[in-house]
Amino acid sequence: MTRRGGMFITFEGIDGSGKSTQARALAEHLRQRGLDVVATREPGGSPGAEEIRALLLRGNPDRWSAETEILLFTAARRDHLERLIEPSLAAGRVVVCDRFADSTRVYQGVTRGDLRQIVDELHRLMIGREPDLTFIIDIDPETGLSRARSRQGGEERFEDFGTQMQARMRAGFLDLAREFPERCRLIDGNRPADVIAAEIAAIADEALG
Amino acid sequence: MTRRGGMFITFEGIDGSGKSTQARALAEHLRQRGLDVVATREPGGSPGAEEIRALLLRGNPDRWSAETEILLFTAARRDHLERLIEPSLAAGRVVVCDRFADSTRVYQGVTRGDLRQIVDELHRLMIGREPDLTFIIDIDPETGLSRARSRQGGEERFEDFGTQMQARMRAGFLDLAREFPERCRLIDGNRPADVIAAEIAAIADEALG
Repeated sequence: MTRRGGMFITFEGIDGSGKSTQARALAEHLRQRGLDVVATREPGGSPGAEEIRALLLRGNPDRWSAETEILLFTAARRDHLERLIEPSLAAGRVVVCDRFADSTRVYQGVTRGDLRQIVDELHRLMIGREPDLTFIIDIDPETGLSRARSRQGGEERFEDFGTQMQARMRAGFLDLAREFPERCRLIDGNRPADVIAAEIAAIADEALG
Repeated sequence: MTRRGGMFITFEGIDGSGKSTQARALAEHLRQRGLDVVATREPGGSPGAEEIRALLLRGNPDRWSAETEILLFTAARRDHLERLIEPSLAAGRVVVCDRFADSTRVYQGVTRGDLRQIVDELHRLMIGREPDLTFIIDIDPETGLSRARSRQGGEERFEDFGTQMQARMRAGFLDLAREFPERCRLIDGNRPADVIAAEIAAIADEALG
């Protein structure tokens, strides 16, 4: 087994798609292969970014405008990137991250079409980094919504959407897979978790060499 | 007296320059003239921006990188702008603000020269608004430092600089006055507060018509 390491893998998809479960499963699989894995998530992932996350997730849903929200997401991402992701990649580790810039692209772009340009300019200016490999877990929006609603805690603010919004988000992620075909792998999430995990593990193993 | 209103006036200068005192004095003077005045400050000035301010000012000075700090300042400024400054100006009020974008330009630019471009790009993308009139209170760096050190509370993190840094900040504000001559008025802060206040009031009265 070649221990190439230094790979940045992200998981994306609508709420309730199972991406967090799959991110954990892949991290565990890669650790069992003997790789040095850092499992993290956004928003948050570093102490400073977690504090910004708290500002983003607590309180009234319209406490921030979409533009201020994008700035806070970008601040949290910059901190996460420079404090955890970049140093881990530089040390040859595999970073498995539950959500990254693609979530901002899709969520803000679906909220208001003209925001996508702002998201892209901020990303270019302050983030720059793209994942090496992104798993987009695609699931029926109704299934995702009922799963998300049955959970406690976590990202309530961002899950307070109806089926119609979930369907638009799903379409946004499918568009994204077409926009970045070189790094995005679309995964059918309407299957048992272990079947999905096996497919993802095989793709990651091949990418890691 | 013409009640033109809708004017955005900012105060800038190094710590201990007396800008906060002068901002309060001008707000009081304009109120006595019968104008509808909103006195505010940065970082902060709106409930959301004050929460971001707390993230910026508390904790270890190097808890954020310069880049993350600029993003947080811009997020706070965007919230302040859209929740307080723009609505107040639209309602014909005079907004008197203690620090605004010029502080970010000077403080970050002096910290690391290459940051000024990032500050400018973020400002163009997310803020856009410039003040109608900016008073830059210029003071001897030694005097400023001893005044700032004799105070309690407030902006300790940003006042933890030596005389050399204060001198560089001062030079940064002088450069700024030359860069934006149409809106910046350089005020000699090495005089009694009431003399300075009278000069500022006369300039503001003339600008307000």
